[in-house]
Amino acid sequence: MISGADSAVTRSDKALILAYDHGLEHGPIDFEDVPASADPETVFDVATHDAVTAFAVGKGLAEAYYPSYEDDVTLLAKLNGTSNMWMGEPDSAVNWSVENAADLGAEAIGFTHYGGSNNEVEMAEEFRDAQEAARDHDMGVVMWSYPRGQGLKNDTSASTIAYASRLGLELGADITKIKYPGSADAMQWACDVAGNTKIVMSGGSKTSDREFLETVETAMSAGASGLAVGRNVFQRENPTELLDGLEQVIFEDKTADEALGVMSSAESRADTTSD
Amino acid sequence: MISGADSAVTRSDKALILAYDHGLEHGPIDFEDVPASADPETVFDVATHDAVTAFAVGKGLAEAYYPSYEDDVTLLAKLNGTSNMWMGEPDSAVNWSVENAADLGAEAIGFTHYGGSNNEVEMAEEFRDAQEAARDHDMGVVMWSYPRGQGLKNDTSASTIAYASRLGLELGADITKIKYPGSADAMQWACDVAGNTKIVMSGGSKTSDREFLETVETAMSAGASGLAVGRNVFQRENPTELLDGLEQVIFEDKTADEALGVMSSAESRADTTSD
Amino acid sequence: MISGADSAVTRSDKALILAYDHGLEHGPIDFEDVPASADPETVFDVATHDAVTAFAVGKGLAEAYYPSYEDDVTLLAKLNGTSNMWMGEPDSAVNWSVENAADLGAEAIGFTHYGGSNNEVEMAEEFRDAQEAARDHDMGVVMWSYPRGQGLKNDTSASTIAYASRLGLELGADITKIKYPGSADAMQWACDVAGNTKIVMSGGSKTSDREFLETVETAMSAGASGLAVGRNVFQRENPTELLDGLEQVIFEDKTADEALGVMSSAESRADTTSD
Amino acid sequence: MISGADSAVTRSDKALILAYDHGLEHGPIDFEDVPASADPETVFDVATHDAVTAFAVGKGLAEAYYPSYEDDVTLLAKLNGTSNMWMGEPDSAVNWSVENAADLGAEAIGFTHYGGSNNEVEMAEEFRDAQEAARDHDMGVVMWSYPRGQGLKNDTSASTIAYASRLGLELGADITKIKYPGSADAMQWACDVAGNTKIVMSGGSKTSDREFLETVETAMSAGASGLAVGRNVFQRENPTELLDGLEQVIFEDKTADEALGVMSSAESRADTTSD
Amino acid sequence: MISGADSAVTRSDKALILAYDHGLEHGPIDFEDVPASADPETVFDVATHDAVTAFAVGKGLAEAYYPSYEDDVTLLAKLNGTSNMWMGEPDSAVNWSVENAADLGAEAIGFTHYGGSNNEVEMAEEFRDAQEAARDHDMGVVMWSYPRGQGLKNDTSASTIAYASRLGLELGADITKIKYPGSADAMQWACDVAGNTKIVMSGGSKTSDREFLETVETAMSAGASGLAVGRNVFQRENPTELLDGLEQVIFEDKTADEALGVMSSAESRADTTSD
Repeated sequence: MISGADSAVTRSDKALILAYDHGLEHGPIDFEDVPASADPETVFDVATHDAVTAFAVGKGLAEAYYPSYEDDVTLLAKLNGTSNMWMGEPDSAVNWSVENAADLGAEAIGFTHYGGSNNEVEMAEEFRDAQEAARDHDMGVVMWSYPRGQGLKNDTSASTIAYASRLGLELGADITKIKYPGSADAMQWACDVAGNTKIVMSGGSKTSDREFLETVETAMSAGASGLAVGRNVFQRENPTELLDGLEQVIFEDKTADEALGVMSSAESRADTTSD
Repeated sequence: MISGADSAVTRSDKALILAYDHGLEHGPIDFEDVPASADPETVFDVATHDAVTAFAVGKGLAEAYYPSYEDDVTLLAKLNGTSNMWMGEPDSAVNWSVENAADLGAEAIGFTHYGGSNNEVEMAEEFRDAQEAARDHDMGVVMWSYPRGQGLKNDTSASTIAYASRLGLELGADITKIKYPGSADAMQWACDVAGNTKIVMSGGSKTSDREFLETVETAMSAGASGLAVGRNVFQRENPTELLDGLEQVIFEDKTADEALGVMSSAESRADTTSD
Repeated sequence: MISGADSAVTRSDKALILAYDHGLEHGPIDFEDVPASADPETVFDVATHDAVTAFAVGKGLAEAYYPSYEDDVTLLAKLNGTSNMWMGEPDSAVNWSVENAADLGAEAIGFTHYGGSNNEVEMAEEFRDAQEAARDHDMGVVMWSYPRGQGLKNDTSASTIAYASRLGLELGADITKIKYPGSADAMQWACDVAGNTKIVMSGGSKTSDREFLETVETAMSAGASGLAVGRNVFQRENPTELLDGLEQVIFEDKTADEALGVMSSAESRADTTSD
Repeated sequence: MISGADSAVTRSDKALILAYDHGLEHGPIDFEDVPASADPETVFDVATHDAVTAFAVGKGLAEAYYPSYEDDVTLLAKLNGTSNMWMGEPDSAVNWSVENAADLGAEAIGFTHYGGSNNEVEMAEEFRDAQEAARDHDMGVVMWSYPRGQGLKNDTSASTIAYASRLGLELGADITKIKYPGSADAMQWACDVAGNTKIVMSGGSKTSDREFLETVETAMSAGASGLAVGRNVFQRENPTELLDGLEQVIFEDKTADEALGVMSSAESRADTTSD
Repeated sequence: MISGADSAVTRSDKALILAYDHGLEHGPIDFEDVPASADPETVFDVATHDAVTAFAVGKGLAEAYYPSYEDDVTLLAKLNGTSNMWMGEPDSAVNWSVENAADLGAEAIGFTHYGGSNNEVEMAEEFRDAQEAARDHDMGVVMWSYPRGQGLKNDTSASTIAYASRLGLELGADITKIKYPGSADAMQWACDVAGNTKIVMSGGSKTSDREFLETVETAMSAGASGLAVGRNVFQRENPTELLDGLEQVIFEDKTADEALGVMSSAESRADTTSD
């Protein structure tokens, strides 16, 4: 973690990372509920929302679409990832070099690390190369820290998530993305051991607006610096509305209740306007 | 996918790729029905047909024959491939460096990716290197996206083929070659999730003219940008005739019926002439 | 071992290395008894104690905190390490390049070598690269020599620890960190076979002040050049006090009894002062 | 295959390669019948025979003996090979870099490829590097194409040998060395699918002069461009005599009968002279 | 083998290599009988004996002690080696780069090759790199050729040792170190198949002076060029005396009897002097 290295992908030291690597990690099945979300333009458009501090995509999407959005979107280059057709121990191919990502205009790199996988050693060494190359290009470093693999019974236990958080600090991330460990106390432990690395909570599967915003509120109170979200945004008919709400909770210190109020009044105005 | 990077191997945004890597992938057994097809000159001659937008061969064939055809054939360097004597999990040796391919005059690279193989991670990283080197040489990138390997029961299911299509987009191909998934709907899904990557259908085993052209017509209507074909062309006594028909369907928006009409009238004229 | 190469991390040829890689190797669980020890600033502050000749941390901690301590702390770059979630044969990812460590101001490198592990050959070759790169940057080399792995029943037997000590000499360390083998005789054997490499004893799990200081006294008498310590210092409410005692034993040739006397009188004075 | 790249190791488009890598591949046991053949000078002397277009040896023999023969022998650098003490799946260590071979004066490289081995992918990639480096040094490329390994029941079936032949063409050899497939028809198939790559038959185990020459005659009639021979030459008391005969069959389009006539008359003259 | 490349480590074409890598390969247990032999200075002093043409040690010992002996000892850099705590198939870590060895003043490299090990292919390729780098630095090359591993029942049979000897020639060594195969005939076979590579016999476990000198005499008569010895020298109270004897047998063509005579008269003189 280098002081200020994350500033390109944060706003007032908070981060709302929109992640869109599902086509690689899960396949088109993730787009079925909202077919328009299969079209990268739709999601790049969502990423222009003011609340989004960085948009995490792989090389192919960046090459094909980022040139049209470079003034309105901050590119976070998700360097590694693998299809879920693969049956082996958790691993992740490095699909993108840092040099190429820098040429395409990325401000930061994203890298998945599976602590506890039989491939942990190799992944850590790939992370080393990417992290040091990112420093050479003055890019920020975000680690997706997801303990997973042989011998890990419950990868969302409080101690596992705290360990995941600490690994980001120890290995040189500026921001570490962890799963929500299920309680405010566990989240606070994870934030406490992260030193001055920023912790962002991962959005996870789709849930209701209220439940989601309340979890984010809890995480922020526990010391998190924001959120990395994918399906909970782009699997909605109106992603902008939820981003309005998240903006309140993450950047304006509002409660979930307050955010929902903002969202519904905005919706009312929108309804009025569109009538 | 870089805007326009595929233009060297397309015509009016459509592609008809003639592939001739069967001697490596299947061995000489593939040439037995039409023994002349074992002679690379025969197939290079076929590749001079106007409808063929690119000819995909390996290094050895390109080195030995392309110099005599460089004015009439567009070279697509098929970088990886392996004999079918090999019994392991699906894998493909990288037999050709991008630098060497560029020196020999290739306009684009072709690369096989076996999603779901135990070698997927390694192959994706080899693709990364090849794709980025191709960009350095302003070459197009075509991915043969063929999910295959441990745990993949049916590699032509609609969701597998759609995933294959999406992987081309996610990993940085300009054109992705997929197997025909068996129905117009499934093909359309695969094309819908490909973003602005072009999808070409793979020709598969030899079949009748009508059946083949109808499948191509269906694929084009479903959103495909063309075809990559091998045995269905060079295992015929008169490959030119079929290419005439394919030209109608792919580049002239004709139906299979219309194309068959063009083919038979050309044949009649040819018969007349040769009498 | 190059004559004088260790001087940056020794004082009068003695070493007291404070190690703080537990967040990586063991996870946050190691900080639970003294939660403040999870905060790197707390431990960096401890490392400013005069008795500490070098502070061993990984890249992430060095990047984030060392810039604020570079005038008061000597940085020993612990290059490799792995989480204990990993279930495989003992191995250690190389998380930090020597070049990067040199740029950040490290005076020496630290490297773990697991003799007897199935990964011994690979680790030795990684050590070779790191050791030779360290020489190119005029950095000292400290080896954590910990025989461990398949076939090693008791990795603290006298002969195993003597072997560990010798490996540091044979492979090119300036200082070799070994476990205390349980007796003065065994420790002397380990020191005798180390040639002019310096041997430092590893601190191990937390124990009482007296027991700990007596072990250090024994080790020093047996020929050791000092101590590498972590939990025995930072898992105390008053780490400075113990460092005062260790300074007596390691640098002033005092007995454990004498050191305890110094510690208690200092405490009395502190008590008086704070009253 | 590059037009003319093989000319350094052929004469009038025919090749007689003397191979002497048996000390590496089989060990000294291969020299027992004719102990003098263990001495490289003996075999280098044989290689000065006019009929020998290239002499294939490994790095050690080339370094030690070639400097004395560089005016009279054409060096074919056999880059890979492994002792038969090794019990694993067929594999071959790359014992010699192309750069070093070029420095020592080699005109071409020789490389073994085991199609069907579990190591096929790795060997093909090693061949790629060697083949492309050879092109950079304007050297010819000879592939020892020997399908072998898990799942290959009969590695001299007609289709396997034809496949072996085709692999040389596909992967970029100028000359491909294959085993004799047992019949003129099978040999012709192998030659037919080789495109403009030259096919040389491998000499195999020692046999009678007549049987050997008749097989070579058959191979030449079937389209082969020559022979690569080892034991059938150097395991004879008078290797020169057999080379005289092979010269007739390979370069002078003579039958085995005619060649045997030449050999016996030469022998008669030699007998007369020595009386 | 390059003509004269071994001259730095031979005298009148004979070699007496003192090897001292036992601390790495066997551990300190090898020094127990003569504890002083654990101190590298003791053995470096022995290496200054005129009969010793080269001293083989690893990087650590060379770095730490060779600077004090560079006028009196010829350094043979033993590049690879591994502890015997390791339980896997025979393998040997490359602990030292040729570049570093050349910088430290080594005149030749030493490299272990385990023919027949599952790691043979990898070791041969590591040897290739080291051998070629040594040539770039005008260094001699000594191969420790020790067939060992899966499937090798008796690694000192005559044919195995002859094979070991031949491998040194084939792969590019100047001098090959082999085990004594048990008889003069077997040793002669090994020497006969070595071409102009020099063969040195390995000293093996400690034995009596007479038995040892007689074996060396036999080996020299069979065609060996000398001896590589470790424990048989440094595990004696008076290593100099035995070196005096070996000098007679190796460099002065004396018998073991004559050498023992020289040794005892020297001892008598020494006794007289010290009285």
